[in-house]
Amino acid sequence: MGNLLQEIRDNRPLWLLAMVPVLFIVDHLAPNAHTLLFVLSILAIFPLALLLSHSTEAVAGRMGDATGGLLNASLGNLTELVIALTALRAGEYALVKASIAGAIVTNTLFMLGASFLLGGLKHRVQEFNRVNARFQSSLLFVATVAILIPSAVTAADSIAMSTFTRQLSVGLSILLIVVYGLGLLFSLKTHKEIFGQQEEQGGEHAPLGAALATLAGATVLVALVSEIFVESVQQAAVSFGMTPAFVGFIIVALVGGAAEMASAFSGARKNRLDLSVGIALGSASQIALFVAPVLVLVSYFIGPTPMDLEFWPGAVVMIFLAAMTVVLVTAGGHSTWFVGVLLLMVYVILAMTLYLLPPQVQ
Amino acid sequence: MGNLLQEIRDNRPLWLLAMVPVLFIVDHLAPNAHTLLFVLSILAIFPLALLLSHSTEAVAGRMGDATGGLLNASLGNLTELVIALTALRAGEYALVKASIAGAIVTNTLFMLGASFLLGGLKHRVQEFNRVNARFQSSLLFVATVAILIPSAVTAADSIAMSTFTRQLSVGLSILLIVVYGLGLLFSLKTHKEIFGQQEEQGGEHAPLGAALATLAGATVLVALVSEIFVESVQQAAVSFGMTPAFVGFIIVALVGGAAEMASAFSGARKNRLDLSVGIALGSASQIALFVAPVLVLVSYFIGPTPMDLEFWPGAVVMIFLAAMTVVLVTAGGHSTWFVGVLLLMVYVILAMTLYLLPPQVQ
Amino acid sequence: MGNLLQEIRDNRPLWLLAMVPVLFIVDHLAPNAHTLLFVLSILAIFPLALLLSHSTEAVAGRMGDATGGLLNASLGNLTELVIALTALRAGEYALVKASIAGAIVTNTLFMLGASFLLGGLKHRVQEFNRVNARFQSSLLFVATVAILIPSAVTAADSIAMSTFTRQLSVGLSILLIVVYGLGLLFSLKTHKEIFGQQEEQGGEHAPLGAALATLAGATVLVALVSEIFVESVQQAAVSFGMTPAFVGFIIVALVGGAAEMASAFSGARKNRLDLSVGIALGSASQIALFVAPVLVLVSYFIGPTPMDLEFWPGAVVMIFLAAMTVVLVTAGGHSTWFVGVLLLMVYVILAMTLYLLPPQVQ
Repeated sequence: MGNLLQEIRDNRPLWLLAMVPVLFIVDHLAPNAHTLLFVLSILAIFPLALLLSHSTEAVAGRMGDATGGLLNASLGNLTELVIALTALRAGEYALVKASIAGAIVTNTLFMLGASFLLGGLKHRVQEFNRVNARFQSSLLFVATVAILIPSAVTAADSIAMSTFTRQLSVGLSILLIVVYGLGLLFSLKTHKEIFGQQEEQGGEHAPLGAALATLAGATVLVALVSEIFVESVQQAAVSFGMTPAFVGFIIVALVGGAAEMASAFSGARKNRLDLSVGIALGSASQIALFVAPVLVLVSYFIGPTPMDLEFWPGAVVMIFLAAMTVVLVTAGGHSTWFVGVLLLMVYVILAMTLYLLPPQVQ
Repeated sequence: MGNLLQEIRDNRPLWLLAMVPVLFIVDHLAPNAHTLLFVLSILAIFPLALLLSHSTEAVAGRMGDATGGLLNASLGNLTELVIALTALRAGEYALVKASIAGAIVTNTLFMLGASFLLGGLKHRVQEFNRVNARFQSSLLFVATVAILIPSAVTAADSIAMSTFTRQLSVGLSILLIVVYGLGLLFSLKTHKEIFGQQEEQGGEHAPLGAALATLAGATVLVALVSEIFVESVQQAAVSFGMTPAFVGFIIVALVGGAAEMASAFSGARKNRLDLSVGIALGSASQIALFVAPVLVLVSYFIGPTPMDLEFWPGAVVMIFLAAMTVVLVTAGGHSTWFVGVLLLMVYVILAMTLYLLPPQVQ
Repeated sequence: MGNLLQEIRDNRPLWLLAMVPVLFIVDHLAPNAHTLLFVLSILAIFPLALLLSHSTEAVAGRMGDATGGLLNASLGNLTELVIALTALRAGEYALVKASIAGAIVTNTLFMLGASFLLGGLKHRVQEFNRVNARFQSSLLFVATVAILIPSAVTAADSIAMSTFTRQLSVGLSILLIVVYGLGLLFSLKTHKEIFGQQEEQGGEHAPLGAALATLAGATVLVALVSEIFVESVQQAAVSFGMTPAFVGFIIVALVGGAAEMASAFSGARKNRLDLSVGIALGSASQIALFVAPVLVLVSYFIGPTPMDLEFWPGAVVMIFLAAMTVVLVTAGGHSTWFVGVLLLMVYVILAMTLYLLPPQVQ
């Protein structure tokens, strides 16, 4: 506990944890102040995501290579998963899907673009391991393609059949989780040296008990905060003039990925781009191979009706272009600040499109 | 003849040749036993495809570099071509197109994926010549794009005009065959050393006469068996609960490509991945640049009405994604078992989509 | 002036400058001879584009690195810009958009394909700097994606909303121009050595005054000739049986890019493929990042109504495929004549499709 307090004291962003009780109080006193609750819940999720990420690493660090790696890999997107599960339970399927799509696009274009830009402003030309990057970007591309095939095929053929889409989504989800499991076997067991350099050494860790308690506590808090967030987001979006697609794609994705972004940016500044590329591509792959199928399967138990994996065509285009762009940009193993600007430009264009898009088409 | 018999004795799969007479007898006695005929004709085509492939290689081996290479390159997809011609004569254009699309997708995703997986289970990391692989995958990509442009443009613009599509298909077919001819000039004459290492050395060959006789005989038998296959496939599909698109895309493509797959897999196990990559990408390019346009032009002479080259939009998406995936995955020159799993996953997802797709949209 | 005359005498294509006065006379005497005026204006634009390109280089050569580079980069597509501005003022938005799309496709597929073919016929295998090529092709890809996102998203969602499209086009244009400015900062200031080898040394240059006068004069003449060209092109197209899309995509793009093509082809013959690749990819990027957004913003001042950046879906497919193809083909750093043939094949297929496409869908 002392460790946790010290960590909070040393780490400015964690001061925002004070927003968590504030949020709960405001929610109790003024449950209809949607805009305020929306802003407060974003401010509260951010430090919780950081805490979740730190404690996951701490627990993983104590658990030995294989189990720790498994934990780290599975809980890497825990914040996104908890937010999406809350939205799922509330039946907000459009928000869930937008946040899946947005997490892939944000992790690839924004996280990587900002890493390249921040790193490039400090270092003239940055190099990263091309073999690793290519391996991970192939994995990302294939994972993205896999998740998009049903949407792409049905969009191309202009069909909208719930039975077909639902059966396919379940089959696809099981397949993706099996492949995700094989991927863990590959990266943690048979070929772990390929992925060896991605994990940042976090210095001394908290003791296991404290770390586990922090992990559990932060998860519960994220879940509670997410509930307020999901309830307030749609109405707040309206009052800010934002479309639901924009909220799911951009806001939720940025909030949910804040912790990983902090690590990726810090890696880039320290000229350790392999770390940034690994986090960005790895996280995006994990969303496609693990988070998305888990949500589909879980929807059969906790959602009002089952959720399928069919994205709206514009989202398909965006995910596909983001994956393509990143694959091409990372193929060379070099980066400069302008490459970062280009990736961010694509991200801003997507955000602009979503912001201006009339709500009824999403 | 003795050589042929000895080859059959030494080569277990060729024992299936016994299915050829069985098939003809069943077809004579029970022409309406579609499901049985379907299964028997698949069992009969498989050894014939192997025989065709062996005898083509044997004839090519006797003919000197240039003519032999030409022969090998042109007859490499002879089984697919004969099956498709039979379906063409029967006016089964949907089946012909599905089998073209399916051959490209199966050769790239399944043949390459299974090669990577089988090779990777035996060898930790396999390397292949990146320059060759990149050359061949560019060729494949461009060939695939070429064949897809008319469908993609018309799909994007939602137009369906038979005159336009037909004129374009003929022009496109002539152009593709010209480029295919230039490709032969390139690979057999001006730059043959780039492609030099692809052909497997088959040990001692049969004498030319016997090889030619086997080639001719096997072709005639494939044609006869294909006729029964094409007649029975649609009805058998219904009784197996398979959509026509699934049959053309998956079943015909797997049956037609069985011989090449055997070579590609054996190459991968022997850590000769250049061979596997060459067969898979080369065969897919050849379908796009040679088999498809030949079928369009021949349809003016043997089909009930001319066939165009417009694929249904879902097939366009699948072919394009398969080509993209393979280009990206082979760009690095390395493979492991998990890369094979990823390619196979995309293949299984496509198969699953086709299996579940309601028949009316294809 | 003596320099100019000598340049004209030594440079056969410049003899076509004689067509300029002929064109003006014919336009005065027979303003309805559209077909003749169309042919004459093409013949007149070609030498003017060469002159424009030479004098830009001459002025740039006198101006010192930074200003000269800026000038060269900004005026590199001056001919295309002037033609498009003329079409814009005449309200021919379909022609403007087709010429933007066509310039990207022509610069990538035709200019690069013909360079590879011409170079490859003289040199067995040509190498070019892979790092540069990859950098420039990433830039091209991202620029192309940026310009396509609004069209792709709206096409995928089948929406056609003028307010949305117009707002997005203005925002997008401002963003693209900002990024273009940052790109100049990058290529002329912070990382200029990456682009260092692209400029051809033109030997001794004309004095600055003469060069500036030639530049100004040629620009005015191109503008005047463009006016006749734009007026005559639609009617001439009809009498040649060409669709408007074909004229904008193919004819305008070939005429406008003639000068750059001459440089790119000559570089390829001299085995200086880096020059050819740089011109082709650089010019295509510039169209996307600079020419297109300038035209949108200028349309608010000189056009009858504002122009948006929404392309017809077929054009989106073509631009995207062209960019993809070039990125893949240049990734390896090697080229042979057959690679050139493949790129030209894709170009011919696109041209064929546009030629045969019924006019109402464009």
